[in-house]
Amino acid sequence: MGEFDLIERYFKAPARDMAQRNSAVAQGIGDDCALLQPAAGMQLAISSDMLVEGRHFFADVDPLTLGHKALAVNLSDLAACGAKPLAFTLALALPQADEAWLAPFSRGLLALAAEHNCALIGGDTTQGPLNICITVFGEVPKNQALLRNAAKVGDDIYVSGTLGDARLALEVMRGKLALSTEAFTAAKTRLETPTPRVALGMALRGIASSAIDVSDGLQGDLGHVLQQSAVGAVIDAAVVTQLLAINLIATQAIKTTINSQFTSQKQLQYALSGGDDYELAFTASVSKRQAVQAAALASNTPVTRIGQIEAEPGLRLIDAQGQTVPNIFASFDHFQ
Amino acid sequence: MGEFDLIERYFKAPARDMAQRNSAVAQGIGDDCALLQPAAGMQLAISSDMLVEGRHFFADVDPLTLGHKALAVNLSDLAACGAKPLAFTLALALPQADEAWLAPFSRGLLALAAEHNCALIGGDTTQGPLNICITVFGEVPKNQALLRNAAKVGDDIYVSGTLGDARLALEVMRGKLALSTEAFTAAKTRLETPTPRVALGMALRGIASSAIDVSDGLQGDLGHVLQQSAVGAVIDAAVVTQLLAINLIATQAIKTTINSQFTSQKQLQYALSGGDDYELAFTASVSKRQAVQAAALASNTPVTRIGQIEAEPGLRLIDAQGQTVPNIFASFDHFQ
Repeated sequence: MGEFDLIERYFKAPARDMAQRNSAVAQGIGDDCALLQPAAGMQLAISSDMLVEGRHFFADVDPLTLGHKALAVNLSDLAACGAKPLAFTLALALPQADEAWLAPFSRGLLALAAEHNCALIGGDTTQGPLNICITVFGEVPKNQALLRNAAKVGDDIYVSGTLGDARLALEVMRGKLALSTEAFTAAKTRLETPTPRVALGMALRGIASSAIDVSDGLQGDLGHVLQQSAVGAVIDAAVVTQLLAINLIATQAIKTTINSQFTSQKQLQYALSGGDDYELAFTASVSKRQAVQAAALASNTPVTRIGQIEAEPGLRLIDAQGQTVPNIFASFDHFQ
Repeated sequence: MGEFDLIERYFKAPARDMAQRNSAVAQGIGDDCALLQPAAGMQLAISSDMLVEGRHFFADVDPLTLGHKALAVNLSDLAACGAKPLAFTLALALPQADEAWLAPFSRGLLALAAEHNCALIGGDTTQGPLNICITVFGEVPKNQALLRNAAKVGDDIYVSGTLGDARLALEVMRGKLALSTEAFTAAKTRLETPTPRVALGMALRGIASSAIDVSDGLQGDLGHVLQQSAVGAVIDAAVVTQLLAINLIATQAIKTTINSQFTSQKQLQYALSGGDDYELAFTASVSKRQAVQAAALASNTPVTRIGQIEAEPGLRLIDAQGQTVPNIFASFDHFQ
């Protein structure tokens, strides 16, 4: 099958089907531009991410999970704003048009898109070193988007789901750590098929005072909130360490295997600055504790309170006894 | 200067300035998502293009003109829909953060953006083989977008500006043709700094029955209009050949130099299927001839009538005597 036929079969044909089922799409794939019609009173939330082989994923990654992840990281940005996904564009540079890659990539991508009724409305395909650039569009009522700049002194700090597992999987794949198959599989699932917290983000409209998606590590990303809100924070190191999925789900036997080489210091490091978590970190006033619980329940998303916003700039860690823990962990930097 | 400082200086700081001057931008760069607020009654037109080194541009291209072109090809898609530019995202993979490249690239990009009040509202930067992915957003009144599927039998066919010059420059750069410096410079300007026909596209709302931007060559792109409108066309080969800029602007001496090696057959080939023209091809009913002239005048854009829509499928060429010219030219295919 030729390149045009492959693109038609695996992207354009399903894209036309999805656009027809999405009332916000006035014109889908197949013209110079797509046309979107957000509902009245809505703002359009837009985010764009570029994934490059060797930097964001390994050359031998399963294309099915890569398709999922390429969209998931963008949906996670919509989630962090409380926006409802509408549509996305896909620009793809490929070394060659290879059906054995395109078929599963498209399946992983479009399955997640269908789950969120997020229609593929356009894009580009070209030959070149593998590069995936997705731009995603969502809608959010005017003045209700969750932003980074409105955390207030005294607000609680929360994070959804689990942290550090993606980095743990990465270190095993790099040969730096060994894990049981069971523990590695759990961590690898988090690395390869992150769950964008879209329902939670929407449920937090009017409740959270600020939000961000944790993509480069909690410490670095929460740092953006602190900086833009001109506040500081204290977070509980023991609580954060417990957010590694393997600590939540593993049997005692697995935990023992892990802990022999994976010190609690390293666990804290991965949870704080591992990267690739795609969870939401957010703040909310103490008066909203019940509302946050209700939002977590309604969106079926675990949420953990990890600390508090303070006036003093900077991010401080404390242990279970309230003592300061030295913080020596930097955020993951894609350009290093 | 570090990578973050370079991105801040050359992209983020000017992006914040542009967003403040653009009332459609509710939230610019610096959060998980940008927020756009199209005016009431407007649809959002969206297009995305990916440019790859070695395929869309040479490694030694002037980054200033590359910045211009990367946005121009996207604005050209908005123009083809009659949309008014609002904003764009830029995702950039770079082998290294090199100020000598970033400074002129950003200057070329943002100068064109400023010309169209098209604000940079987000994106991504990562390390990788050079890849530029821009997604552009415009607005167009509901049901007024120019599409590809409404050309009618009897409509006139028009094209803006000039055709084939970019391909001519490319062939000279590939060593396949030799031109005088003057002629080459004129052609190279068209290759490197195409002019998106935004004002013309907006002026053609309610006048053109269909439109497309000529990026892969007139023949192939007009072919999309014919196919989607379920019609055919006849176009005048002599008129199209004359649309090479060097035929319009060159002195007799240059023309003679050119013609010694650049046969009229080759000229027709470049004009018909050279690619990289970024002109508008559009159709309009015969009753709109004066309105088309007025739109051309108002937008200060040359427009040439080149043929007519017919019921019989396919694209036919005729010479000045109305005789059929054999059509042997294929459209440029980026995947070949």
